Amino acid sequence: MKETISVGLLGLGTVGSGVIEILEDHKESIQHKTGCNVNIKTVLVNNLSKPRNLQNNETKLTDQYTDITQDPEIDVVVEVMGGIDHTLKILMEAIENGKHIVTANKDLVAQYGAELLEATQRNKCDLFYEASVAGGIPILRAILDGLSSDRIRKMMGIVNGTTNYILTKMSKEGVDFDTVLKEAQDLGFAEADPTADVDGLDAARKMTILSILGFSMPINLEDVQIKGIRGLSLSDINYAKQLGYSVKLIGVADHSENGASISVEPTLLPLDHPLSSVNDEYNAVYVYGDAVGETMFYGPGAGKFPTATAVVSDLIAVIKSLRLGTSGMAYVQPQFPKKMKTKNDTITKKYLRLHVHDQPGMLMELTKIFAQYDISFDQIIQRKADAEDERELMMITHQVSEADFERAYEELGKLSSIRSVDSVFRVEGSE
Amino acid sequence: MKETISVGLLGLGTVGSGVIEILEDHKESIQHKTGCNVNIKTVLVNNLSKPRNLQNNETKLTDQYTDITQDPEIDVVVEVMGGIDHTLKILMEAIENGKHIVTANKDLVAQYGAELLEATQRNKCDLFYEASVAGGIPILRAILDGLSSDRIRKMMGIVNGTTNYILTKMSKEGVDFDTVLKEAQDLGFAEADPTADVDGLDAARKMTILSILGFSMPINLEDVQIKGIRGLSLSDINYAKQLGYSVKLIGVADHSENGASISVEPTLLPLDHPLSSVNDEYNAVYVYGDAVGETMFYGPGAGKFPTATAVVSDLIAVIKSLRLGTSGMAYVQPQFPKKMKTKNDTITKKYLRLHVHDQPGMLMELTKIFAQYDISFDQIIQRKADAEDERELMMITHQVSEADFERAYEELGKLSSIRSVDSVFRVEGSE
Repeated sequence: MKETISVGLLGLGTVGSGVIEILEDHKESIQHKTGCNVNIKTVLVNNLSKPRNLQNNETKLTDQYTDITQDPEIDVVVEVMGGIDHTLKILMEAIENGKHIVTANKDLVAQYGAELLEATQRNKCDLFYEASVAGGIPILRAILDGLSSDRIRKMMGIVNGTTNYILTKMSKEGVDFDTVLKEAQDLGFAEADPTADVDGLDAARKMTILSILGFSMPINLEDVQIKGIRGLSLSDINYAKQLGYSVKLIGVADHSENGASISVEPTLLPLDHPLSSVNDEYNAVYVYGDAVGETMFYGPGAGKFPTATAVVSDLIAVIKSLRLGTSGMAYVQPQFPKKMKTKNDTITKKYLRLHVHDQPGMLMELTKIFAQYDISFDQIIQRKADAEDERELMMITHQVSEADFERAYEELGKLSSIRSVDSVFRVEGSE
Repeated sequence: MKETISVGLLGLGTVGSGVIEILEDHKESIQHKTGCNVNIKTVLVNNLSKPRNLQNNETKLTDQYTDITQDPEIDVVVEVMGGIDHTLKILMEAIENGKHIVTANKDLVAQYGAELLEATQRNKCDLFYEASVAGGIPILRAILDGLSSDRIRKMMGIVNGTTNYILTKMSKEGVDFDTVLKEAQDLGFAEADPTADVDGLDAARKMTILSILGFSMPINLEDVQIKGIRGLSLSDINYAKQLGYSVKLIGVADHSENGASISVEPTLLPLDHPLSSVNDEYNAVYVYGDAVGETMFYGPGAGKFPTATAVVSDLIAVIKSLRLGTSGMAYVQPQFPKKMKTKNDTITKKYLRLHVHDQPGMLMELTKIFAQYDISFDQIIQRKADAEDERELMMITHQVSEADFERAYEELGKLSSIRSVDSVFRVEGSE
């Protein structure tokens, strides 16, 4: 049995250096847990001439990925470089050469998870990606092992730290979206190009991964309804508060006899809902199981050490299964064929904010349209708007199907009394 | 390879019936995950003549435990009957006969976990006990696998549902301890003999199990400082609120270079601390790791199906490792020898409530004692007491060592101006 496991590390950015530091710092405890030493043999970097502070002088830096994928001594490839197509090619080559994979790359796993899994199983290799969802929170293990005896009905999560930081700041300090985004970029909490975070794509990738595992179904990123928070107005946050809600970017995946539905969108959550108090860059995932009921997993969703912890925990799992001779047996293929809910079966409550012309019969016209589709209201607030002859109207509906809501929404657009529909959000919580 | 795994079930109470129902209900998914069918072959019950509603007619009821421990066909023994010494004897016999064990019995695991572990490892059997701590929350797996690469510094938990239910009711409805306890007993939330819950022993057992795994040290129940909530006064809950705190029964385990310290006691928590909003019979465990930072795991701490879910998830783990040929390799022995903090190194803040005689120099006498031990105060409230010439005094100290606090407390008892020290609680949170 091998005494030392050799690792090829792809990427030496923030997370990559974190992985090296944790492996160094926890050497003895990893030796105790696995009976092995871990040696980072080779690290793939972009720029060989950049000065690096590597404690282990035997670690070799390279800018040729084949130095890792084709090195027969390397047992495990740890991928923390990001990217999709090129990275996929490298990992596929590594797998074909019998290497086990640990990755933190949600973009890749959400898009090519099934392909990677197929290749690793064919080659009897392990593939772990705990760090790809919710950073330091061991949520994939909780779903795969801890709740393995249960039937998961619903997962609801704050799985993007950047947008949660932005929404928390807006809500607590009353600062508008653009200002907070700029500040977050200056502080390094948001990327220079914030698209993937702000427009909901990053959260959608994580919800895809959670749904595949939680519902045991081959869900694709394309199955997720996505709406981000770009340009979200302070007014909505303030009105939501008055109505008893917080505004969060929530990923919801639910599953019933009619199929699954998955979405990421700005959502009004009751202020006493536990996800309402998840603030700043923290993540949390609520899991509802038939038998277990309501559970929640909370922790840092990103960051050097939280993410590196998840990567190294995966590495320990790979090493354990190497030593036990059980590599490639950890994951099972999805049990069920994919079945998505139709819009008729997707039922939620909705929040709307409108600007209307203050004219006789306006509210009657409006409510008539909703009544036509059996949509009734839980709360309505009407306010003076900036313009003298306009009113601002906030409405929360009772439960309504996506299909009915879409039809009503389309007819709203035809009403001359409506100047603009400013916001439409999902509403979670009590009926 | 076996196609069917035979289980002997010890106990057919609430959790036992839950286990049978979940196994029946999730048959296909368990088959998919493990490649095996699970058959409950034999069930040990106390009273054979009591009518039972068992769906599987082939399941045999017995009142002789040897029908399970000595049946060579039985692979796994699932223990949900409770009890300590007699149960230990049965499980030891089962282990010596090569059977794997799943147990929900915290009393047994807290007291004889090391013995059970030694026996299972000697016989190459598995031992799983996820259900013994925090019911449906997969907290042991989170610590053992999810955070396996990290160094856990502190665990803080609400791990007893009964006392949390009582404290929530007292706080929300202003009802006194005895009334709520009676009500909880009538509703079946509290046992007829509530000692183990109310006096903190149940929580201490769970903290023992968490500490052994989290700190990788052979901690014993005797190492836990225990103080329960029996007779806890509504006044303290109300004063705590005014001072910005909730009152919870909190298990704290922390660990530094000086050693570990573990306690269960009524604790004042800042109202905005996430554990403050864990209400009713829910449980939650906060885990602080060097690298990961702050994580929290929340869910139902007890109940038929949450507990049965944890038991069946363990059973799935046993079956997987049976099929992989890795039985008995899941747990590792503690890495470190036991080292407990001295009282000089155990530092906390304290809350005190006193009745004092309203006489000149009283407060000076009092504060002089504290000053002698370098104990200073964060908050003080003095109120009129029921008796005309008395005052009620609530004080929250800054950080103080247990040793200094005990010395000061002893001297307080000698002061003639102090009529009674009514409460002493731990205080968590900001300095």
